[in-house]
Amino acid sequence: EVKLSGDGRMGVVYDGADWNFSSRARVAFTLSGTTDSGLEFGASFKTSDIRGDAAGADGLEDPRAGNRGTVFISGAFGKLTMGDVASAPEELFGDLADVGYMGDDWGTANGGTNDIPYLTLDNETTSGLMYTYSAGSFSVAAAMTDGNGYGSALQGTFEADTQAYSVAAAYTFGNYTVGLGYEQLDRTGSVLDMSQTELAGIAKFGNTDVKAYYAIGGDANPVDDAVGLSVASTFNAITVKGYVQNVDYVAAGVDSVTWYGLGADYDLGGGAILAAGVQDDDINGSDPTANVGVKFKF
Amino acid sequence: EVKLSGDGRMGVVYDGADWNFSSRARVAFTLSGTTDSGLEFGASFKTSDIRGDAAGADGLEDPRAGNRGTVFISGAFGKLTMGDVASAPEELFGDLADVGYMGDDWGTANGGTNDIPYLTLDNETTSGLMYTYSAGSFSVAAAMTDGNGYGSALQGTFEADTQAYSVAAAYTFGNYTVGLGYEQLDRTGSVLDMSQTELAGIAKFGNTDVKAYYAIGGDANPVDDAVGLSVASTFNAITVKGYVQNVDYVAAGVDSVTWYGLGADYDLGGGAILAAGVQDDDINGSDPTANVGVKFKF
Amino acid sequence: EVKLSGDGRMGVVYDGADWNFSSRARVAFTLSGTTDSGLEFGASFKTSDIRGDAAGADGLEDPRAGNRGTVFISGAFGKLTMGDVASAPEELFGDLADVGYMGDDWGTANGGTNDIPYLTLDNETTSGLMYTYSAGSFSVAAAMTDGNGYGSALQGTFEADTQAYSVAAAYTFGNYTVGLGYEQLDRTGSVLDMSQTELAGIAKFGNTDVKAYYAIGGDANPVDDAVGLSVASTFNAITVKGYVQNVDYVAAGVDSVTWYGLGADYDLGGGAILAAGVQDDDINGSDPTANVGVKFKF
Repeated sequence: EVKLSGDGRMGVVYDGADWNFSSRARVAFTLSGTTDSGLEFGASFKTSDIRGDAAGADGLEDPRAGNRGTVFISGAFGKLTMGDVASAPEELFGDLADVGYMGDDWGTANGGTNDIPYLTLDNETTSGLMYTYSAGSFSVAAAMTDGNGYGSALQGTFEADTQAYSVAAAYTFGNYTVGLGYEQLDRTGSVLDMSQTELAGIAKFGNTDVKAYYAIGGDANPVDDAVGLSVASTFNAITVKGYVQNVDYVAAGVDSVTWYGLGADYDLGGGAILAAGVQDDDINGSDPTANVGVKFKF
Repeated sequence: EVKLSGDGRMGVVYDGADWNFSSRARVAFTLSGTTDSGLEFGASFKTSDIRGDAAGADGLEDPRAGNRGTVFISGAFGKLTMGDVASAPEELFGDLADVGYMGDDWGTANGGTNDIPYLTLDNETTSGLMYTYSAGSFSVAAAMTDGNGYGSALQGTFEADTQAYSVAAAYTFGNYTVGLGYEQLDRTGSVLDMSQTELAGIAKFGNTDVKAYYAIGGDANPVDDAVGLSVASTFNAITVKGYVQNVDYVAAGVDSVTWYGLGADYDLGGGAILAAGVQDDDINGSDPTANVGVKFKF
Repeated sequence: EVKLSGDGRMGVVYDGADWNFSSRARVAFTLSGTTDSGLEFGASFKTSDIRGDAAGADGLEDPRAGNRGTVFISGAFGKLTMGDVASAPEELFGDLADVGYMGDDWGTANGGTNDIPYLTLDNETTSGLMYTYSAGSFSVAAAMTDGNGYGSALQGTFEADTQAYSVAAAYTFGNYTVGLGYEQLDRTGSVLDMSQTELAGIAKFGNTDVKAYYAIGGDANPVDDAVGLSVASTFNAITVKGYVQNVDYVAAGVDSVTWYGLGADYDLGGGAILAAGVQDDDINGSDPTANVGVKFKF
C-alpha cells in the first residue's frame, strides 16, 4: 500500500540583515506491507517543490538532499531500517524544541539551531543501517554506516574511508525518559577518529515538555563538551517554546559559543499553525535572526 | 488532503530543419486544508518523467525547473500565494491561445510562442509573493519578489540585487474583461531599471474566444511596445486557434519582430486531444516550425 | 486516473572486496484514460528516494536517470509508446532471470548481469518511439529514436548524429515462444554503423522457466556473437535461478568472456521476497560478487 501525506510552509525570514520570502511544499510517500508470518515492512521518502529559497543557495537546492528515504523490516526481533537514518542517540532522543515556522531549517546567523550537535549521521545522506528494539520501558538503538564512505559528495563532505557507529539506550518511567548514547567516527588515520557521549533527559510536567542533554567529545572531536535545554509549554491554542545550547571547544583560544531560540506557535486548527521565532548566538558581530509564517500538515 | 492528477503528451516536433520525437508525463500534487476559522490553505507542485527531449538540452532537463510549486492561504482578505508565482498581470490575463500539442513549450525558430512577453516572473523559478482579491466584477493582483535576488541560478540568469514588483486589475462585464497591469524590475544601478505597462482585453463571442493586449516598455526596457491578439473558435470537437504578436524595440536599427501561430485541436474525449500547430516569425533566414501530437489529462 | 504502486529493497552487497549496504524505495505513477472511440492512453514513470549507494557513484545518483517514463496510446492498430522505451527485441524477449535482491542493478566485478546485451536502447534515457502489435500467437515490435541524437548526455555517452532502429517478432505456441530480432545503430560515418541479430526462445516446463538467446553482431559491432541461457525453478516458496552468458569479440587477441549468476528467492508473502545471489565472470583477477537482502512490492 502507498499512502500520501504532505506538508507546506510559507512566511518571511530575517537573516540579520534582510527579510526574505521562504516557502516549501512536500509530499511524503509511505509504503507498507506485511509478510505471511507477520513481519512488517515498509519504506518512506519525500518529494518536494524544489526551488531556491532564502535558506538555500539561490535556485540550486538539490532534489537529492533531504528526502530522508528509508526502507525497513520489523518483527519481534526489533526493527531494521536502511537508508538515510539518523544516529542511534538522535533516533531515541531527537532534537530540542524548534522555534518558528522554518523549524531546524532556519537558525542563528552562524547556523545554530534547535538541532542537538550529534557527531554522526546528522543531516547526512550517507546510506546507513539502524537497529531499534523496545521492551517495556527500555529502548535501544544502534546505527552504522558501511565502509563505502561517509558524508555527502554533493556537499563536498564525502570521505571515502570514514565509517560511523553509534549506540544508545533510553529508559522511560512515567513522564520521564533518561538516555545515554555513544557515537564514533572512524576516519583515515587513527589520530583523526572522533567520538562523543551524550546523556539526555526528557520530561513532561502537565502541559510543559522539557528536554536536556549533555555531550562530551572524545578522541579528535573538536568539541570538548556541549549542553542544551529546551522547554515547550502549551496554553490552549498557544505553545511557547525556547531552547539554549552551549558548546566548549578543545582548542585553546577558541571561544565557547552559546545560542538560543524563542518562539511561539498558534494552532489555527485543521493542520495549520502560525509560528514565529527569534534565534541568536553570542558570537561577536552577529545579529539575531527571525522567521514568521504558517506551516501546514496535509 | 493530497490529491493526484496528471497530464501527458506525445508527438513529433519540427524545428525548421528536422522532425524529432517529444513526449512527457507529469503528476500534479494538490494539497488542501481548512483552519477552524474557515481559512483555506494549500499547496501544489508537479513531478515529471525527466528526460531530455527535443525541446530541452539533450538529457539535461533539470528536475528543479518548471514544477511551479506554490503554497497559499486564503480567506475574506483575499489570497496570499508564495513560491513560483507569475507576475500580477499574467495572473489576471494569462497568455494568448496556444497552438499544437506542445503548448508554450514549442515556439518559432527564434523562440516566439503564445506567451505574452511579460517583464517579470515569466517562467522564472524565483521565490515570489502574490496577493489576489476579487469582489464582484473586480479582480486585483499584486506580486513581488524579495531582495534575495531574481532569476534562475540554474539558467545563469540570477541577479543578486534585482527585485520585481507588479500590480494588475481586471474588470469583467458579461462576456468581456478588460485589464491593466504594471510591472517593474529594480536592478543594480537605477539606470538599469525596467518597467512595462500592459492593457489587456478578453472577450467571448458565442463559440469564439478572443484575447488581445498592448504593452509599453519604460525605463531601460529594451522593448518599446508590443501588441498581440489570439482567436480560438470551437466547432463541435474541433477548436481552431491562432495568435499573432509584434514587438518594437527602442534601439535604433533593431528590427521589430512579428510572429504568429496557427493550430487546431481535435477533442478525442476522455481527456485526450489531438493537436497540431505551425508557428513562424519574420526574422530573416528562419523557417516555420510545427508540432503534431496528442495531449492527455488524467 | 492516477494510480500509485511502489517497490523497495534493502540488504548488503559484496563487490569482490567489501560488503556494503544498499537500499532503495520507489513509487510508480500509472496514468490511464480512454477516448470516446475506445482508444486507450496512459503514461507511467517512477520517483525514488535518491541517495548514493554502493551501486552508484557516492551521493551522486541522478534523479533524471532510470525513471523509465513513457507515454502511450493504443487501439486496434496496436500500441504506440514514446519516451524511455527499450529496443524491439528487449520489449518482446526481456532479459534472462535475475539473481539476488538487487536484480540487474548488481552484477559481476566487470559489470556482467542477467541483462541480455542488446545493441540499442538498453538502459539509455534517449527519447524513442516503440510500436507493438499482437494478433493471436504473433507479436511484433519496432522501435526507433529520432535524429536528435542518441545516448545519455548525463553519462557522457550522447552522440549527436546517431540513430537507433530495431524490429522483432515472436510466435507463441502453448508454453513455448520463439522470436527473432534485429537492431541497427547508424552512427556518423557509415563505417561506424553497428547491427545485431538475436534469436530467442522461452519455454515453461511445469514449474521451470527457461530462456535462451543467440546474438550475432554485424557491421562495426565489436561483438562477434553472444549466447545465454537462464533457468528458474519454483518449489513452493523457493525459486532457484541461474543464468550463464558468453560473448565472443571480433577483434583478434580479445578474449571471449563468460559470466554467470546463481541465486535463490524465498517468498515471504505479502509482497516481500528474501533473495540472495552470486555472480562471477572468467576475466583474470576478478572475484565473485554477491548480494543478500529483501525486496518489496507495495
